[in-house]
Amino acid sequence: MTNLLHNDCLLRALRRQPVDVTPVWLMRQAGRYLPEYRAARARAGSFMRLCQTPELACEVTLQPLARFPLDAAILFSDILTIPDAMGLGLSFSEGEGPQFARPVRSMADIARLAIPDPEIELRYVMDAVRLIRQELHGQVPLIGFAGSPWTLATYMVEGGSSKDYARIKGLLYDQPLALHRLLEVVTAAVIAYLNAQIAAGAQILMVFDTWGGILTPRAYREFSLAYLAQIVAGLHRTAAQPVPVILFTKGGGAWLEDIAATGCDAVGIDWTVDLSAARRRIGDRVALQGNLDPAALYAEPERIRVQVAQTLADFGPGVGHIFNLGHGIQPGVDPDRVRALVDAVHELSKPYHVNSADAGS
Amino acid sequence: MTNLLHNDCLLRALRRQPVDVTPVWLMRQAGRYLPEYRAARARAGSFMRLCQTPELACEVTLQPLARFPLDAAILFSDILTIPDAMGLGLSFSEGEGPQFARPVRSMADIARLAIPDPEIELRYVMDAVRLIRQELHGQVPLIGFAGSPWTLATYMVEGGSSKDYARIKGLLYDQPLALHRLLEVVTAAVIAYLNAQIAAGAQILMVFDTWGGILTPRAYREFSLAYLAQIVAGLHRTAAQPVPVILFTKGGGAWLEDIAATGCDAVGIDWTVDLSAARRRIGDRVALQGNLDPAALYAEPERIRVQVAQTLADFGPGVGHIFNLGHGIQPGVDPDRVRALVDAVHELSKPYHVNSADAGS
Repeated sequence: MTNLLHNDCLLRALRRQPVDVTPVWLMRQAGRYLPEYRAARARAGSFMRLCQTPELACEVTLQPLARFPLDAAILFSDILTIPDAMGLGLSFSEGEGPQFARPVRSMADIARLAIPDPEIELRYVMDAVRLIRQELHGQVPLIGFAGSPWTLATYMVEGGSSKDYARIKGLLYDQPLALHRLLEVVTAAVIAYLNAQIAAGAQILMVFDTWGGILTPRAYREFSLAYLAQIVAGLHRTAAQPVPVILFTKGGGAWLEDIAATGCDAVGIDWTVDLSAARRRIGDRVALQGNLDPAALYAEPERIRVQVAQTLADFGPGVGHIFNLGHGIQPGVDPDRVRALVDAVHELSKPYHVNSADAGS
Repeated sequence: MTNLLHNDCLLRALRRQPVDVTPVWLMRQAGRYLPEYRAARARAGSFMRLCQTPELACEVTLQPLARFPLDAAILFSDILTIPDAMGLGLSFSEGEGPQFARPVRSMADIARLAIPDPEIELRYVMDAVRLIRQELHGQVPLIGFAGSPWTLATYMVEGGSSKDYARIKGLLYDQPLALHRLLEVVTAAVIAYLNAQIAAGAQILMVFDTWGGILTPRAYREFSLAYLAQIVAGLHRTAAQPVPVILFTKGGGAWLEDIAATGCDAVGIDWTVDLSAARRRIGDRVALQGNLDPAALYAEPERIRVQVAQTLADFGPGVGHIFNLGHGIQPGVDPDRVRALVDAVHELSKPYHVNSADAGS
């Protein structure tokens, strides 16, 4: 199916093959900064209903592509669909972020958790993937995604967002075996979920480890990285459907070598790391995705252009760069600034790919 | 004055001289986790009155020392006293964090800022330093402190805490010269403030760069590190009063070499960095302060002991370690857990200093 893509620039970059321009997509490109997204959310009535209605999820997935020449679509959904399908009762209250009605607080809670069947409890996600693929007509590839087991466990144990992570860290230090049991169940659920997304038509997968960066290096390897590696190993990827995998640990700049060693195809880089240094460290093994400061989108268009030029120069010429922000677009950003970014990437990256036909992969 | 200290363990460790046990103090050791602190704050009526009343500031500074055998006192105050003294109108609303009535929003606002006279507008801080020194009777050294210019500017421009730093980052990208002007004024104020603290009796100084870690590497060097270096250079330190300086950028693990090169005596290390790696990188030049995960204090005492042992082992034998958390104590921590930590540090660190008399400095 991937052969039929009109624009395979992102897939080529993920395989570290030559491209004409640096591909660009943006984390949370379908989101609150777009007035048409806010309108769709208002029509849906709630964030969860937006996620759970395939037609609406498809609509908002395609919204940024109608505005900007982005090189990928990313499934509109939420990383917390899995714990919700496990029965934790997810809701989003205005301005409060996600909340679980039944958080995981005991070994008994952990023992009760069952792995959701992606085509039953999470069928709305798979239906959205199928519908989006159909509506994309091969224009650009579709990225599917999941949260990392550690990140999902953080929300499941805290019951929502947290400032100090008292409960999950208490579990980590006091009952590491219980936490491992939780992470094992969640990892199995993530693997099943991502494989179902591949079957439904996702052409690229990304795993968001939003909270890996709050761990010590030792705890990161034990409680987050080990499960990321299990996920990469557990995906049904074939020669016919290779489906590149991007791993992103926010705040994981110190551990790029470890992330690259999981067998993933690309590593997401946040804005606190020099892209040139990241490339020196792991750029011979994996593609790099990133890493403009999301707050640069608060600047004037001509300043955004300067920052884009800097990011492209940091990576330098050659294969394996996917332009992105270092984290998701903030809701307060003006869509015109996003256009300035996307246009600048395509225009200013050309010189870095002039000899791309000779470069090999 | 420092010669008269009963316990100079911390000063010796900061000079990378041999000690019998690893000294320990804890960021925010005088704070909300202590019931006697909460009582004092209730008596004061507000957080600001607690800071501004030298007798009360002295009382809460000494509270943790009455409970635990800590190796230092740290002045009870707030990093935002300087912008408050510049006329921004600081208040703390319950659960909301700090707020400025008159945030800095324009070049005209920046031009209006004057450097406070520490013995006039900030006299309450200097009076607190003098009173604490008197009440300490040379028991342990007193640490004075200030916020870093970048961190203070963040609050001054945002008007309080922020999730996305839209205003300060907008300023950084759009009007870097205006931001530099702001940082210059704040740096001059911080230098005057810290020198006044030395004159009033502070025996060690620490600069908290709480938000340096939200910057790109390039922006960190330009907008935070450069001003930290100016502060270190601007302090009135003499052979008779050397006053060691500790610099701490939270999330600054990637830039330890740069921080060490400022001329500071010690570098604070957060929990996301391996202390062994930090020591290999900069431990031959500066002392290291840190770096237990603050959330480890949510664990049972025997687990805290294991984590303390690990942190001590990470640093290893030899000179130049000051035990601390990687960030401040969280308000929800049980004081008995803090006791477990302090006792474990003193007890478990002894073997690392057995040959300390031979080790030289």
